[in-house]
Amino acid sequence: VVNWFRRRSARVETPKLRTRSESAVATKVDLAELTPGLGIFLGQAAYLQLTIFENLGRAVATAPTVESKAALSRVVAASLGKYEGLVVEIERHGFTAAGVMEPQRFGIDEFQRVTQGADWSENLVTCYVTAGFLDDFFVRLAPGLAADVAGRVIHVLEANSYAHLLVRELSQAIDANPRLGSRLALWGRRLVGDTMLVARHALNPTANHDSDEARLEPVFTELIAAHTRRMDALGLTA
Amino acid sequence: VVNWFRRRSARVETPKLRTRSESAVATKVDLAELTPGLGIFLGQAAYLQLTIFENLGRAVATAPTVESKAALSRVVAASLGKYEGLVVEIERHGFTAAGVMEPQRFGIDEFQRVTQGADWSENLVTCYVTAGFLDDFFVRLAPGLAADVAGRVIHVLEANSYAHLLVRELSQAIDANPRLGSRLALWGRRLVGDTMLVARHALNPTANHDSDEARLEPVFTELIAAHTRRMDALGLTA
Repeated sequence: VVNWFRRRSARVETPKLRTRSESAVATKVDLAELTPGLGIFLGQAAYLQLTIFENLGRAVATAPTVESKAALSRVVAASLGKYEGLVVEIERHGFTAAGVMEPQRFGIDEFQRVTQGADWSENLVTCYVTAGFLDDFFVRLAPGLAADVAGRVIHVLEANSYAHLLVRELSQAIDANPRLGSRLALWGRRLVGDTMLVARHALNPTANHDSDEARLEPVFTELIAAHTRRMDALGLTA
Repeated sequence: VVNWFRRRSARVETPKLRTRSESAVATKVDLAELTPGLGIFLGQAAYLQLTIFENLGRAVATAPTVESKAALSRVVAASLGKYEGLVVEIERHGFTAAGVMEPQRFGIDEFQRVTQGADWSENLVTCYVTAGFLDDFFVRLAPGLAADVAGRVIHVLEANSYAHLLVRELSQAIDANPRLGSRLALWGRRLVGDTMLVARHALNPTANHDSDEARLEPVFTELIAAHTRRMDALGLTA
């Protein structure tokens, strides 16, 4: 994994349980000052969601059992629901989905290609890791939009992803084939690097590179901690 | 195309426009006496819908332009909506989706394999032709279920499929490459044969083969007429 921030290793902390009152007070760090223009934001968020949907569709089509197909079809419906929610927002502003997604195609198609995975289980990890990370990321980026737009976009992105069904499918596959776990742990590490790259590409850089890094660091530290918890849920080391 | 009924060629009539009052009176011929048990009906209808969804998902993933992806994602959402509507009905009766679909897997996976198509445009014709035919078919078969179930299932299957978006995508592809039309016309003929086979497989045979044929003939004549209109909409000969 690329070491994004020189000081990162010194700062990573084991996630701790907070009391409810502490949680309510804590505000997530956001990236509002690096939010790109509305059309760019929505085009990236929608085209990435469509990419996640395509990967999930492939996971349904190549699932080893009908039971897996049935479970994954719920996940794919949730992803498509998020995409459609973003399209509603796109059209509300007089854009078209194709119009705002087209300029984002090159980088995101390449992201999809390099994160494709060699088989069904790697593809499922891709769906799980990239969707989790990117939903979190765009939720942090949304506060830089107008408040009403941000509220609606965050509502769409925070809808239930049915990720627990991906965890169940992957855990079953790992239990049935213990050697799969170490391969998927490696795959997860590669994925988080590629996902951070595509996320950084979505940012609107300021003139001052150092100040961007200073803003990014705490957010990416939190996003990586969430990624670590996601891999933990599979019993894998991030 | 297999000639299903020896007398068919003598009976095919050019579809005629009816006045509104005639349409209102005319009742579609149905297949109520050949409807299989509820679990079998719902398992077949749901697994075929999931197959259509998988094919549409592949069409989105392999679409040549972002505009095509955006259009096809509406079609795929409609298909997934029908699948989910059938799952609601399945679970209402205490079945699980995987439980009723599993016994149908073998025949339908084979149907999916032989109707896969060599490229994006053939796959789109598959989505268009098989979904149109099978939705019609299960609507004719549903009246053999309990009346309340039949009403809900028909409501699910008759929801908007956004097939006009498939027609638009295919018409654009044919306009851009006139030789494509004759290849897709051939593909459509092969598809309707395979689709009729999988549809017949869904029927509950009575002991009397001749009486089955007598019931099937008028229904399949109507389904083939609807198929012909679908191919007409592409400017292709059925």
